[in-house]
Order: sequence, then C-alpha cells, then structure tokens
Amino acid sequence: METAQISHLLVEKMQSIVGSPYVFADQENLYAYSHDETEDLSFLPDVVVKPAIPLEVSRIMQFCNEHKIPVTARGAGTGLSGAALPVHKGILLSMERFNKIIHIDEINHQATVEPGVITQVLQEAAMEKGLFYPVDPGSRGSCSLGGNLAQSSGGPRAVKYGTTRENVLNLEVVLPTGEIIWTGANVLKYSTGYNLTQLMVGSEGTLGIITKAVFKLRPYPTHKLVMLVPFASAEQACEAVNAIFMAGISPSCLEFMERDAIEWAVRYTGSTIEIPANVQAHLLIEVDGNEMDLLYKDAERIYEVLSRYEVGEVLLGESSQQQEELWALRRKVPYAVRHTSVYKEEDTVVPRGHLPQLLKGVKEIGRKYNFTSVCYGHAGDGNLHVNIIKGDMSEEEWNRKLPEGIREIFSLCVRLGGTISGEHGIGYVQKPYIGIALPDINLALMRGIKQVFDPNGILNPGKIF
Amino acid sequence: METAQISHLLVEKMQSIVGSPYVFADQENLYAYSHDETEDLSFLPDVVVKPAIPLEVSRIMQFCNEHKIPVTARGAGTGLSGAALPVHKGILLSMERFNKIIHIDEINHQATVEPGVITQVLQEAAMEKGLFYPVDPGSRGSCSLGGNLAQSSGGPRAVKYGTTRENVLNLEVVLPTGEIIWTGANVLKYSTGYNLTQLMVGSEGTLGIITKAVFKLRPYPTHKLVMLVPFASAEQACEAVNAIFMAGISPSCLEFMERDAIEWAVRYTGSTIEIPANVQAHLLIEVDGNEMDLLYKDAERIYEVLSRYEVGEVLLGESSQQQEELWALRRKVPYAVRHTSVYKEEDTVVPRGHLPQLLKGVKEIGRKYNFTSVCYGHAGDGNLHVNIIKGDMSEEEWNRKLPEGIREIFSLCVRLGGTISGEHGIGYVQKPYIGIALPDINLALMRGIKQVFDPNGILNPGKIF
Repeated sequence: METAQISHLLVEKMQSIVGSPYVFADQENLYAYSHDETEDLSFLPDVVVKPAIPLEVSRIMQFCNEHKIPVTARGAGTGLSGAALPVHKGILLSMERFNKIIHIDEINHQATVEPGVITQVLQEAAMEKGLFYPVDPGSRGSCSLGGNLAQSSGGPRAVKYGTTRENVLNLEVVLPTGEIIWTGANVLKYSTGYNLTQLMVGSEGTLGIITKAVFKLRPYPTHKLVMLVPFASAEQACEAVNAIFMAGISPSCLEFMERDAIEWAVRYTGSTIEIPANVQAHLLIEVDGNEMDLLYKDAERIYEVLSRYEVGEVLLGESSQQQEELWALRRKVPYAVRHTSVYKEEDTVVPRGHLPQLLKGVKEIGRKYNFTSVCYGHAGDGNLHVNIIKGDMSEEEWNRKLPEGIREIFSLCVRLGGTISGEHGIGYVQKPYIGIALPDINLALMRGIKQVFDPNGILNPGKIF
Repeated sequence: METAQISHLLVEKMQSIVGSPYVFADQENLYAYSHDETEDLSFLPDVVVKPAIPLEVSRIMQFCNEHKIPVTARGAGTGLSGAALPVHKGILLSMERFNKIIHIDEINHQATVEPGVITQVLQEAAMEKGLFYPVDPGSRGSCSLGGNLAQSSGGPRAVKYGTTRENVLNLEVVLPTGEIIWTGANVLKYSTGYNLTQLMVGSEGTLGIITKAVFKLRPYPTHKLVMLVPFASAEQACEAVNAIFMAGISPSCLEFMERDAIEWAVRYTGSTIEIPANVQAHLLIEVDGNEMDLLYKDAERIYEVLSRYEVGEVLLGESSQQQEELWALRRKVPYAVRHTSVYKEEDTVVPRGHLPQLLKGVKEIGRKYNFTSVCYGHAGDGNLHVNIIKGDMSEEEWNRKLPEGIREIFSLCVRLGGTISGEHGIGYVQKPYIGIALPDINLALMRGIKQVFDPNGILNPGKIF
C-alpha cells in the first residue's frame, strides 16, 4: 500500500477509538507536534491522536502493537532532549487531554493526577490546601507532570526535595499489549518485588504510557529567604556551594550563574540590577521553612561562609516581591541565551564538590574547539547546564566541531564521577553520546528491559540507545 | 554423578577461586548459614563461599552460570523474609569479607563502601567526620549495608530521611555472566537511561551481586528531642500520627507501639517505666536539627496537637541518656515479642492516614481466626509490623489458620492503597502472598526483567515470585 493509504486507514482507526475531533493529519497540526523545545528539530508524525481516558490509550496501543506502528507520547512539548519527537513517524500520542487533578488527599498528603496536568497547576492546587508539590522545573508553567516523569525532571528545589523521581509513589501505565497496570502502591516505602515505578521514571516513554500518577505532597513551608551573591571568581562560587553544605545548611535552592548568564538575563528582562565589572559569577541561595527566625540564622551562617570568599554586596530578598525579582533573573537565563545566539545546551552533572573542575574543564575545551559557553544551573546538585554558544562560528565549523567538543565535555563529566544528563534525559539529541556514560553491558541490559515491556519496539523508537 | 561428588568438585573449584580457608562444606558451617532471623527456617546450602574481591565473585558467577548452580548471596543474616536462605541449595555466597569502608568523601558527602559493612559501622565512621548516614534499621548493629540494599531496608528515620533506596547513588554489581558494572553515577540526580540502581535496590539478590555501593551522606544533625506519649486508645494514637504531619511538623521518627508491645518490652528489659492501666498505645516521637530552640518549638506544637487526644503524661527525653532509655524500649520490642511466644511478623504498609483502619482490621481478623497480635512500627511511614502471636494455639490450628489470616490482612492492606512489605522484602516467606499485592501482568514483567539479568535463573532461585 501507499503511505497515503496507510495514513488514511490509520486515521480512520484512530477516529474510531478517540472520536474524529481528536485525530489530526493536516500539515499544520502535524508540524505543531513535530518539535519540542530542543533546538530547531522537527519530525512530522503520520497522525496526531489525543486520547482522554486510559481505555482509549489501551485500544490505541493494542492496534499499534499488532501493526507495529510507532507511538511517541508527548506531554506539553517543553522537552530539551527531543524525547517527544516522532523520529520514526507513526502516531504522536498527545496526552494533553489527560489534564485532571483527580484527588488531593489531605489526610495522606498525596495527589492523584493525570499526566497532562501542568506542573504549576498541581503546585497551586496543593498550595490551596496548605500542601506542597516541591518539584519545580524551569518550565513549570508550561511543562506537564507526565513529561516530568518521563525525564525525571528536577529544577532548583531538587537540592532539598528531590527530583520528580523522589516525589512519585505510584503510576498507572498502559503497556504495548493494551494492558493497564499500577506499578506499585500509594505508600512511602515499598519492598514488594522489583520497583517498576522507579524503572518507569526517566524511561522517556519507551516502556509504557503513563495515564495516572500518585505524587507525595508535604506541608507547605510558610517562609523563605533569597540571597543573590556576586563572586569575583566563578570557581570560587562553585567552591562556596560546597562550603555552604559543609557548614550544615540545607538550602532549598542553590543556583549558579556565570557572569554572561546573568548579564544576558539583565539585558533581556530590562532589570535595573547592576553587575560590577569584577563580578564573574553569582549564586542564588534560598532557604525555606516555617520559622523566619531560623531562616535569618541560616542566612547569618551563610554570610559567615561567604566571608571566606571574594564576594560583592549580597542582595537579600525578604519580601516575596524582592524574591520574585531575584528569581526572575535566574528563570530568564535560558530565554536570554536562546534570544542571544544559536546554542546547544548540555545537562551535565557531577558530584557537587567537583563543580570547579567541571567548569574549568568546560572553558578549556571551549578554547580548544573555539567556542564560548554560558554555564548556569543547579549547583547544589552538581547539575550544570552548559550552553555552547554559536556566536559568529560558521555553520560548517559549528557542525564539525560541536560534537567533538560535547564528547570531551561528557567524557570529563564521567571522569569526575558524573554523567551526561541530570534532568533533561537522553532522548534523541544525547543518544549519540550515551556510550560515553554507559558501557555496552549496561546498554544491553536496558535493551533487554525494553524488549520485556515492548517486544515489537513500537514505543518511542529511536530514543536513548 | 552422585550429589557428594558434585559437592566435592564444587568445593574444589571454589577453593581454587577464593582459597581453601574461605570455602566451607562441613555440617556446622552449612547449618550456621542455613538460616537467618526469619522464624525457624533452615535450608542447608551445598557449600558456603566467602569471596573478598569483585573478581572472585565474578569468577564464581561465571562458573555457576555455566553449570547452572544456584547462588544465594547473604549479608549478615538478619533478614526477616528468608531472602538469604539457600532454598534451592547450591552456593551460599557470604559477603562478610566485603567489609571495608573504601572512602568517606567529605567534599561530596558520599561514602563508598563494600556491602558487608555493618550499617552502624558506616553510621559511626560518617559521624566522626560530622556526616550522617541516616538509614537506621532495627538491626543496625548487626545487619549489613548489602542486605539493606537487597531489601530496601528502612527503620525509624525513614520518615524524614528515606529508606536505603533514597540514600544510595550508585552500585557496583557482578552479573551472572561475571561481568562487573556500575549501575549509574555518583550524582544526586540522574536522567541517563533506565535507572538500574533503583532496579537493583530491593531485588533481593535475584538480579546481581552488589560488590560496592556509593551512599549519600548529610551533615550530622547536632540536636534531638524524644517524646514518649501514652494514649488511652490505639486508634487515637494512629490518628495523632497524621495530625502531627498536618500541623507542619517533620519528625525524624514517629513510632507506634501497642500496649502489649511496650509492656512486653518493659518486662523484657526490666525497665522501671510504669504503664497506667488505661494506656492502650504509645507514640515515640523524635525531632532533630541543629537548633535546640527550634526543637523545643516543635515539641510545643506537638503538645498542642496531642492536647486534642486523650493522652497521659508525656515523657520528654532531653539528655542523650534519657533519649536512649526511651529508644531502648522501642528497640527491644521485637526481641521481647520473640522471647514471649512463637510469632509471625508481617511488614504491612498503607498510606499513613489509613493506619487506624489497618489496626482495627487486623484486630477484627484476629478475632475471626482466633489469634492475638502485637502491632508496632514506623507509623510515620504507614508501616506497621503486625506480630501474630501463637500463644496457646495448637500447632495444627496455627498452621491451618495463620495463612488464611495473613491473606486477609494483606488483602486489607491492598484495599487501603498499601502493600505487603514496606521494608522487609518478599523473600521466601511472603512469596505465597505476592499475588495479593501484584497482578499477573506485573509479575510477568518482573520475571521478564529477571530473565534479562539472569537467563539461567541461578541467582537466589525460589524468591519473590
């Protein structure tokens, strides 16, 4: 049969499952779902399908499994590794209609949600009940919980509260056979066979389709303090990160920004904050809790630690408006970078004490391959987002040198005890580098696991390995 | 060949790998390694082997894989589910010589250890450097970290700091092929393919042999306060557990003990603590941190919550001696139970708000099947250890009714959103009940994963499923 005919039959079948209004094969829609926020990549699916209930997903999976049609699940399309791109065409399964918060259980401090719920929507719904969903990816206002689960997304608060992985209890998953399972139980500790919940988190849609999730909530911390600390040396800033922990402080966020990062953000946002010429980096430090007194004590101890370094004037955010201003700068860095140049972002992660070596190494590699970089990220977790800037490199030089440079950066991460992604996932764009982080034996085990869940290889083919 | 001949050849081969002093086939040794702390079960292995380095484990695995000889790894033999019992004979692989703390990394707050290290030994070594390994199973003075990883052991502090699962970063594992892998990286966040580390934790020695582990450490909390709170009603005590969290307090421990549990412990330890006639249960509450002022504030808020219930005089442990006395009672409960009657311990876990229903249900089921029970455990996690007491039941009645009663208790856990083991694992003794917690599809996925890692089924056969 012709491709056009196949597509036609596929569309008809999908319409019979989810209803005509939720199946799209027109160019405009195919294009809209062909890309995420990973650079300028675009892969058109054959058809976009928007189911609303697990049973529809189940029927879609049964059909696709039987006919070996690729199925790529997509949350809100904010991914940074291309994990939701339908690189082998087939069905783009948009989970956007799975958008209900099913239950916020105030007794057990749990939320049962559908995967299409936007992260911030859950945060706010929990907050209304005095509860806290702490995971806070940069794109919290637009990313979905399903995507967060697929990539094990983190964000600034992971340093105190963990990533998505540490905050999920149980998942409802549709397997390629169409069978619907719960991976575990709604409990805080679990020792009942292999942990399928944790296996599913970070598996990037290659093992099953998540249709419900039970998250752990906590009491909402009522107070916080934010500090923006300028350093004369970026390496000293990285060193201070560790010194803060060594002093026994558990910050709720500990973010690092190179001079360029914050300077670009200031320019991009039109902020009035001035950055003195000798400042090379900033740390954004947040502490949270229920007692303001204690937070001021934490701040004092942090000042004490900082006094050992060459730091400028610390901006203290006490009111929520001041805090928002300081955070806005950090949050706008990725947008400022994107606005300033073509770039390639890497999600490096190392034991946090090795951040100074990582940063130094990245700059050396940049000099070798003639690229500049802007680094920022979740320093408290050792998770540094390295943005390689194209600037005025030629297209040819960029395409030739970039992969070599990335390869060296990743090798450095692994040498330092780290790995190539802390929270963005491998997806499509990091796949060529997976061998740097994982030897063949590990990859063979992962392929074996994939085979158990998805023997026909229909789920998000072409990703991770 | 005769079994005796096989054994002889096996002993010779093992001697050639680890050296004669570390291979045992005499009855005394076989018996010593035939049981753990799971009731009175005993299964003799063919041979006990004590390797000391990963390469020896690798060579043992290669040989056993080729000859399809069962290999059951054992830590310190303190397990409560029979996971380390060599029920299919073969090799009992004692990991006791893997007893080195390789490195406590004060910069990165990480410990690299061998699996035979006793949990308390790591705790103390970390404490000497101002660092904290928080996982604290009841048997911390005798259990090993490898066993903790195999079962995802918890203990009282899991409520604030997580179980073993939440405190491990990376594992060195020997596969049945003899290949040696690291499952991940030494990082706080990880999004680089399937999470093999979390898959290994709780897999009870059925997927590979752990030969090194990297754990996360934290700054040592310098202060704590302990409260022992008597309640006139056990159900009210369970309700108070949740009310404490609802008030925004994060206790470092929140333990529940029924009247019998503490009474038996008082008698067993010869403690002078008196339990008034109207007291039906106790909560043992601990808060920790770095500021004594704040802990007293926490205590005040806890008193406020408690004032809503019918509680007796609260014993406050301020000095470390007072705290030790209060804790000793809780710690001795399992020994007191063991000392008082033949019993069967179940490791039930539910969402913590459902503890009152669980407790009520357990008592009802007991009345139906004519057994008494003593319940205690980690109420902050919803993890209740149900000790079914034989008392003066006849052997026949005990053997006939017990499995039915357990089945009903486990079914109740699952109906309440919980499961059949929170921290002891399934091992051998809970295996008949696994189907209550997990449907066939989940078990088929687990068997598939097992097949990927261990196609010849040599690793700890006869366990979990």
